[in-house]
Amino acid sequence: MRALRSDLPDMVADVLARVREKRPRVHSITNAVAQVFTANVLLAFGAIPSMTISVDEIGSFVERADALLVNLGTFDAERRAATDIAIKQAVGKSTPWVLDPVLIDRSPPRADYARAIAKRGPAVVRLNAAEFEALARLPSDDGSVIRYAGERELTVALTGAADLVTDGQHQRRIGNGHEWMTLVTAMGCAESAMVAACLAVEKNSVLAASSALLALGVAGELAAERARGPGTFAAEILDALHGLDKAALVSRARVS
Amino acid sequence: MRALRSDLPDMVADVLARVREKRPRVHSITNAVAQVFTANVLLAFGAIPSMTISVDEIGSFVERADALLVNLGTFDAERRAATDIAIKQAVGKSTPWVLDPVLIDRSPPRADYARAIAKRGPAVVRLNAAEFEALARLPSDDGSVIRYAGERELTVALTGAADLVTDGQHQRRIGNGHEWMTLVTAMGCAESAMVAACLAVEKNSVLAASSALLALGVAGELAAERARGPGTFAAEILDALHGLDKAALVSRARVS
Amino acid sequence: MRALRSDLPDMVADVLARVREKRPRVHSITNAVAQVFTANVLLAFGAIPSMTISVDEIGSFVERADALLVNLGTFDAERRAATDIAIKQAVGKSTPWVLDPVLIDRSPPRADYARAIAKRGPAVVRLNAAEFEALARLPSDDGSVIRYAGERELTVALTGAADLVTDGQHQRRIGNGHEWMTLVTAMGCAESAMVAACLAVEKNSVLAASSALLALGVAGELAAERARGPGTFAAEILDALHGLDKAALVSRARVS
Repeated sequence: MRALRSDLPDMVADVLARVREKRPRVHSITNAVAQVFTANVLLAFGAIPSMTISVDEIGSFVERADALLVNLGTFDAERRAATDIAIKQAVGKSTPWVLDPVLIDRSPPRADYARAIAKRGPAVVRLNAAEFEALARLPSDDGSVIRYAGERELTVALTGAADLVTDGQHQRRIGNGHEWMTLVTAMGCAESAMVAACLAVEKNSVLAASSALLALGVAGELAAERARGPGTFAAEILDALHGLDKAALVSRARVS
Repeated sequence: MRALRSDLPDMVADVLARVREKRPRVHSITNAVAQVFTANVLLAFGAIPSMTISVDEIGSFVERADALLVNLGTFDAERRAATDIAIKQAVGKSTPWVLDPVLIDRSPPRADYARAIAKRGPAVVRLNAAEFEALARLPSDDGSVIRYAGERELTVALTGAADLVTDGQHQRRIGNGHEWMTLVTAMGCAESAMVAACLAVEKNSVLAASSALLALGVAGELAAERARGPGTFAAEILDALHGLDKAALVSRARVS
Repeated sequence: MRALRSDLPDMVADVLARVREKRPRVHSITNAVAQVFTANVLLAFGAIPSMTISVDEIGSFVERADALLVNLGTFDAERRAATDIAIKQAVGKSTPWVLDPVLIDRSPPRADYARAIAKRGPAVVRLNAAEFEALARLPSDDGSVIRYAGERELTVALTGAADLVTDGQHQRRIGNGHEWMTLVTAMGCAESAMVAACLAVEKNSVLAASSALLALGVAGELAAERARGPGTFAAEILDALHGLDKAALVSRARVS
């Protein structure tokens, strides 16, 4: 997957510089298990988290946010009501939003809900293969993913051992990362929040999503070199994200 | 408490190998403060966490889980409703479940609730001395604990400076651990989740509970040698759990 | 801001010694993002956290607590009901309580609520400049803050690049800390919980609040010397708090 002359690492370094310059606020409706790590990842990445799900005030928070994350990892009536308000607000203001349909393959009611809100204009849907299959009712081969993205006019960021980002017309593949990323709870949820942060500074959804995935994958590799296991790794990946520079992106990217 | 020729460390190493091989999914109804650390402990230990408490979907999650944890550290109506569904599902499918009656000594309504659900067939109840006294309305001396376990036909894992695991007939005592374990919030809650993971691969409840307690105690000692205080210790204990091997269990176990 | 002969570091060392001796229990009504870090900060500092927000049992918990924290970072009906019970209990028992009106500058309904409960006798209000302006409807210059504290008969702990603690008559200024403290979510929330722990052993609210702010600021500086970024810093600051001694307070304090 190494593409020696890929233009992507330079473009990602530029997106990161804009995140650190603008410090976008990402309003994150996310599950209870993911809130702390997501907030710390956003802070390390250069963005600002806000997290309320109160129906009394989420409108005020999303109105002035730069991007919105909707993560379905906690599925209760209060969050669904808050999500409805938040998506209306985001769509009305043309604020980009990201859908992360966590574990919908395990819960039919959650999958139904994900399919309904996927029609409300997310810029990016980030998920794994099992979640894609539950969302799209299609296999997760490249052709199906590309076709789904094109027909729905959204960008799919399908993460796994290798990641595929596609809007149906353009494809990016990213092979960076480390196996310990699967042993830290909420790593994928935090990655989705990073996608939202990138969308706040970059309108090209494929580039924005690719930026988040490449940055986290390279940070994971750097962190693994300093950590001794998944516990110290969770701290080190925050340090690595905070210190990530163009040289590391260029030298380590495995992209096409 | 050192028992040079104890058979326990070898048996525990075998239980750990089975956890890592099977990767059981432990559905954990746990308190808001414990969710993240519990999830990361399960992942480091080789198991898979799931954590939803939504009444709309907890049935789907528990139906296919390999074990269930019911932790009472957050006590609200929604969790009680979810707990009721989850226990019904677990009992119906003969899925082993663990009760952790957190802080019931501080709250009479929580203690009443714990006494009611303790009658619904948990394989193991893990608690400290004050919680045992509130649950059993007995003193926490060895004789009372052993008698309670025998009469109720469940295994009690009483943790403290030294741990006692008993089903009323068989007793195991485990003396491993480190004082910093008391300075990391949710350490006991995570330990209960590890008991559930072990029950998914080992039907002998005394062995399953002892495996979790010995593994975490030894990991705590290894972590303390690398850490400088309770903050780095919380990361190091995850690394130590992830890398834990038979040699460390055998050489460090203080058991009888 | 260095005041070579300040009496404050010695007095703070004495407050810390009393916290570690008494181990006060701080009942913390705090937001979902802050609960874990707050609990771990309290444990590292020598105090005991409890965190339930269930209306069925918060009365029991606050009745025997040594101090109460009311943090508004999550704003939902259940927490408002629990908060009402908790404040009544605390006021009735003369248990000191701290108000942390998190992000009220972003949400008008939350600001209204903060103004209402600020009248119910908090010993200390800890906040940043934007939150002060929303609470007091005044600018956040020193004169306004001092006047507000005096008129309301409470202590304001205004944190920022430099901190001001005032009851309207006495002022303390604390210049310790590190920029990475702004990159760890819930750092300010945890600081407010430390204020509550100090109030449990020290009736002088200005000294109690100054003790928490100086201790955390010095711990932050010590942690930054060991950490490589905000992830390892979050662990190191817990270690530093746990090991904090008078020598470090005296040699590093930048106070007046």
